[in-house]
Amino acid sequence: MSAKKTKTMKGPIFNQDSTEFYYTHSAEVVSGEAVDAYIDRLAQAGVGTFVSCGNAQRANYASKVWESDWHGYDPDGPDDQPVLRHALKGQISPFRHRLDSAKRLADMGVDFHERALARCRHHGMGAWMTMRMNDVHGCMEQDSPLLSTFYREQRAAKLLRNTYRDTSWADRSLDWGRPEVQEHYFKLVREQLTRYDLDGLELDWMRFAYHFRPGRELAGGRVITDWMRRVKEECARAAERLGHPVKLGVRVPSRPETARKLGMDAVAWAKEGLVDLVAPSPFWATCEVDMPMQEWHLLLEGTSVELVGCLEIRYQPIPTGPATMMTPELATGAALSVLQGGADQVYLFNYFPSLHGLTENWGADTIDRVFHAMGDVAALEKSSRRHAITFRDVRAPGEPLDNALPATDLQEDMPSPSGCALRINTGSKPESGTAELLLAFAPDGADPASLKVYVNSVECALGDVSADGEARYEVRCDQLENESQVIDVIGGEAKAFTIVRAEIAIAASD
Amino acid sequence: MSAKKTKTMKGPIFNQDSTEFYYTHSAEVVSGEAVDAYIDRLAQAGVGTFVSCGNAQRANYASKVWESDWHGYDPDGPDDQPVLRHALKGQISPFRHRLDSAKRLADMGVDFHERALARCRHHGMGAWMTMRMNDVHGCMEQDSPLLSTFYREQRAAKLLRNTYRDTSWADRSLDWGRPEVQEHYFKLVREQLTRYDLDGLELDWMRFAYHFRPGRELAGGRVITDWMRRVKEECARAAERLGHPVKLGVRVPSRPETARKLGMDAVAWAKEGLVDLVAPSPFWATCEVDMPMQEWHLLLEGTSVELVGCLEIRYQPIPTGPATMMTPELATGAALSVLQGGADQVYLFNYFPSLHGLTENWGADTIDRVFHAMGDVAALEKSSRRHAITFRDVRAPGEPLDNALPATDLQEDMPSPSGCALRINTGSKPESGTAELLLAFAPDGADPASLKVYVNSVECALGDVSADGEARYEVRCDQLENESQVIDVIGGEAKAFTIVRAEIAIAASD
Repeated sequence: MSAKKTKTMKGPIFNQDSTEFYYTHSAEVVSGEAVDAYIDRLAQAGVGTFVSCGNAQRANYASKVWESDWHGYDPDGPDDQPVLRHALKGQISPFRHRLDSAKRLADMGVDFHERALARCRHHGMGAWMTMRMNDVHGCMEQDSPLLSTFYREQRAAKLLRNTYRDTSWADRSLDWGRPEVQEHYFKLVREQLTRYDLDGLELDWMRFAYHFRPGRELAGGRVITDWMRRVKEECARAAERLGHPVKLGVRVPSRPETARKLGMDAVAWAKEGLVDLVAPSPFWATCEVDMPMQEWHLLLEGTSVELVGCLEIRYQPIPTGPATMMTPELATGAALSVLQGGADQVYLFNYFPSLHGLTENWGADTIDRVFHAMGDVAALEKSSRRHAITFRDVRAPGEPLDNALPATDLQEDMPSPSGCALRINTGSKPESGTAELLLAFAPDGADPASLKVYVNSVECALGDVSADGEARYEVRCDQLENESQVIDVIGGEAKAFTIVRAEIAIAASD
Repeated sequence: MSAKKTKTMKGPIFNQDSTEFYYTHSAEVVSGEAVDAYIDRLAQAGVGTFVSCGNAQRANYASKVWESDWHGYDPDGPDDQPVLRHALKGQISPFRHRLDSAKRLADMGVDFHERALARCRHHGMGAWMTMRMNDVHGCMEQDSPLLSTFYREQRAAKLLRNTYRDTSWADRSLDWGRPEVQEHYFKLVREQLTRYDLDGLELDWMRFAYHFRPGRELAGGRVITDWMRRVKEECARAAERLGHPVKLGVRVPSRPETARKLGMDAVAWAKEGLVDLVAPSPFWATCEVDMPMQEWHLLLEGTSVELVGCLEIRYQPIPTGPATMMTPELATGAALSVLQGGADQVYLFNYFPSLHGLTENWGADTIDRVFHAMGDVAALEKSSRRHAITFRDVRAPGEPLDNALPATDLQEDMPSPSGCALRINTGSKPESGTAELLLAFAPDGADPASLKVYVNSVECALGDVSADGEARYEVRCDQLENESQVIDVIGGEAKAFTIVRAEIAIAASD
């Protein structure tokens, strides 16, 4: 176990997907100054550490060891040139836009990451690279230009993760049990650690989280651990070259046991001193607003690892159910839960000012206010926030479903006496102000007026009920508890009901 | 955090319910020698530590601070005397049998526990007391003689755990948030710690596991922690009196986070040095054959706590589904999983030689062989064993259901690519020998011949299919992995199927 060191990362941590900058900057406007301005915008928003993503299946910069995104692409060629032939008609234009921009910036002699990391240093922000370890965007299409030659060869040789089923991207992930896969990624690790001036390299094992044949993950985890020992040595060489530490981070599934059972034993890596940053994360379906940060915190005790909680941009209460993007209030609530659960920092994934509706739905001022607050628990506590129930979207093969919603009164049949109880993680209880519970009922369910609703054993008065089944209840602040609230719903005469969404809103206290 | 000490408990640990001895010994035959013989039988079976239970709601010995079981009972009185009036006709005779025996032994001047613990020392066995912290056997009956006057008073004053629902025993538990409840139990703690020569006292928080108003458990946990500090001081006084250590143990829910969220923060207790023994346990519905022992082990690292895994006597794959008693092979498998997961010892709860069919279904020789093997991983590894899938029967209010069975192909709709995958914890893989997978399908489901079944990505040949839907598959030992096996079931033309039981049997290797 490594000795206790001072934790130094600044939050919030901001992961930049390879695509945003190029989608939002045409070939005509890309420049080193545009990269600077992009970072300046994040600095203004209060981002503490920038984590720059250099690859999916291809590098998004002019790599010497991997194909670049524009490999095989002719900017002056027609829309039916080989690398575009796969695309649906509506995809071609934005796709070309992205490749044109990326290629143009590289042709200008500007490396996005080199420039971005330097600009981060200018602002005193942390400057990291992140590497997607098994990205399979485009894998369900036969000829997506997102696919690398290496991937196509593995696929052609039937060496992908699942050899007996081929119905999802998880089946089509690379098999990290194969030495050629390990060496393929090691090449890129070495390039980035010799090419850039970086504070750390994150290995993003959550893109896409399934790296071994089903059932081979525990043995596979030992393979990854060995491989990471080699990466750690490369980090030490980079630190020597640069004259400052080069840390190693990992993004892993949200539960320690799930991570281990998928071959990503972050706790073991931390205890061996292999990693400096552990970011428990959902995959994509939904921000997971109640990750077991307390447990992670305890498991990492005695190590020098920075524990950060990763927020995704989608909000989906029920697997495969309706989803929206996270609102500022939901993101504030999730950030507070993460920090009060024991995380050192908040980590934002897919929170791009220009994408996912943040510009329209949040607005620039809100982005600045919310991102700034994420670096400061006290600021979050004072903000209007909303706490919800979501689910975890990554489970190890054979791990059972455990989504809390939809919730019905049928659970009262269980031996465990939860009845239809729900639990919402709210972080610390507010000292004053008001709170409101929202329960959304499925159509043709019970009349909310026929139900009794308790928060922490105290009955709540029913307020407004909307036409589409959203019932609001008053919650007194003095009936709230620290960390989480238990909501008990008891059916009346018309008993059958299904709760499809549950939120507690806490108003700003200043 | 307490300094690292040598772990000294001997296994397996055997918890003795207050009732077994008296049910199996009539008033005519109880005696000090009968108690000795009872312990001799356990010594012969290989029990390493005896944990003697002195109470449910009443003391089962002649306590000076609590009512005894026979309080208000007249052995010479009629069957309709007040304390028996509650009982169904068939219950009266065995009930009187138990009270007659208990009272007779006490009247002879023999304290069961004093005698039993002394006999344990004679055999070199560990000698503990265990105290049920909130037993509510009989609470659904108005006048059960199992209920104490204290409990009836709390109930009459409407001070029980749930003030707004009254449908289950969990609603009718005592509220440990009340000082009078804390003091009621503290009296018994102090009595036992001044009365007996014991190696340790276990606080059995799993009888019955719900101690606070719904939603008040996290705050309640701090109350229990304070209370346990007082108990720890009493243990130190007892150690001084006795001239040897008197340890403190706890039985808690099977998941660390569930335990914490129910007010039983065993990890915090361990780190504070309050407890010496932590026994993650199911409640009763089923032996939980895949408790997260690895996680407990990691969380308790750096403490001197003995981690033991508790096995229950029932085997129930599906909540509220059919159940049997554990077979010798299932108990062997569960014990191996617990020990190889990181537990120091196996702990047996409700494994009474004379009850639950062990005498008939196991036989004395088998009891001896299996209990002996539980003290020795190597012996368990060589034994015939069976590994299954069960569920956890204690969840904190609002924690979602997470039972793996029943399993259907519908799970393929999930974003997470588990499909219909199951996971069976088998401990370390056998070096040789044969294994067999059993899948039991619900009636009118798919024809097993139409399904493809994989264990760790290798297809398994279908063997026998019984008339009631049990399909057997050959599993090669070299396709097994250490710790757990992933079973993937893929539907053919007739896709719909439901798996209601899944087991892997591993034959003895010697």
